[in-house]
Amino acid sequence: MEFSEYFTIWDQLTPGQQETLSKSCVSRAVKGGATLHGNGTDCTGLLLVRAGQLRAFILSREGREVTLYRLFERDLCLFSASCLLRSIQFDVTVTAEKDTELWVIPADVYRQIMEQSAALANYTNEIMASRFSEVMWLVEQVMWNSMDRRVAVFLLEEAAIEDTGLLHITHERIANHLGTHREVVTRMLRYFQREGMVRLSRGTVELTDRAKLEALRGA
Amino acid sequence: MEFSEYFTIWDQLTPGQQETLSKSCVSRAVKGGATLHGNGTDCTGLLLVRAGQLRAFILSREGREVTLYRLFERDLCLFSASCLLRSIQFDVTVTAEKDTELWVIPADVYRQIMEQSAALANYTNEIMASRFSEVMWLVEQVMWNSMDRRVAVFLLEEAAIEDTGLLHITHERIANHLGTHREVVTRMLRYFQREGMVRLSRGTVELTDRAKLEALRGA
Repeated sequence: MEFSEYFTIWDQLTPGQQETLSKSCVSRAVKGGATLHGNGTDCTGLLLVRAGQLRAFILSREGREVTLYRLFERDLCLFSASCLLRSIQFDVTVTAEKDTELWVIPADVYRQIMEQSAALANYTNEIMASRFSEVMWLVEQVMWNSMDRRVAVFLLEEAAIEDTGLLHITHERIANHLGTHREVVTRMLRYFQREGMVRLSRGTVELTDRAKLEALRGA
Repeated sequence: MEFSEYFTIWDQLTPGQQETLSKSCVSRAVKGGATLHGNGTDCTGLLLVRAGQLRAFILSREGREVTLYRLFERDLCLFSASCLLRSIQFDVTVTAEKDTELWVIPADVYRQIMEQSAALANYTNEIMASRFSEVMWLVEQVMWNSMDRRVAVFLLEEAAIEDTGLLHITHERIANHLGTHREVVTRMLRYFQREGMVRLSRGTVELTDRAKLEALRGA
């Protein structure tokens, strides 16, 4: 079964634990744009990405969004299973940013194995520390960085993920990643265009001077 | 030895693990204001609070601060031992807010036991999830709440921790908790005073209308 190749610490589980996991996980394929977890759903389960791209974000009461982190191939999403740990006291929404294949692992199955297996518990620790580090990066961005730097950082990161300087993305979606309003993003992008850093057209942002964007990021 | 009474999952460790921990941990007493971890120190170790109060915060390059969380009796600080987990990729500073007694547990000793003990690894997971939840609360505060609400929330929280409506705290220190400038806090507190919610004098803020502050918090 292919699941074993994607589950990083498979070899450190006992045959019994491997069998329990294999039998209980469910394979799913979802279209880009689909919501996998959120809107008050309790415990969707852990999500192991086989191919594609997921996005985890939080929502304000007014419907504003801010991206916490992205998940790629072999990444495991813990926070779609907040019932896994008593101390997870916050809600995230998880959507597919691209067509995505994944496995869903029921939280109670995972927890039962984790209680017995130091290997799985330590692996879970590393994942949580990794997500924690991403959220701390966000805190530092929001606390200490101005919006022009945050937009520059976002554009450069998107270009790296998509491996292209021509981004198919709306101003609204950029605002939802950064937790701000569309108007703020539009104003900033127009300023970037006047400075020769990007070229804007309907539904796209093209990076035309990465060195200048990188200088802004590093400033 | 008293350490065992403060270390929550002591009874779930083997006698050998208990002995290793007891022998390696070091008891310390520090004055309020002392820095326990920070300024590029690598791995101070895990801090278990016996009595007193610690504060964990991050620093900007310009020296601005923002509080991440507080630690009280029986709380264990993981992030003063960032070498504990490879994936902890951020730095916190930890200071004593009051005279504090604590034990320092060397990170390598803790990690060795954690690698063997599912109980300790799962306990560590719960602690990390708990701190993660506090930082997510901070993210939501910073992203979605206006500064007047954040100041109201802070004053009410301080009053609860100190169990008094008369807070001995400077505007500068409030600014350092919230990651903003002293001037912003002073302006906000003067507005609160005009509205009858607080009374200001040198070095103190007295809460004079909690119901009004709570209404502002809940707004």
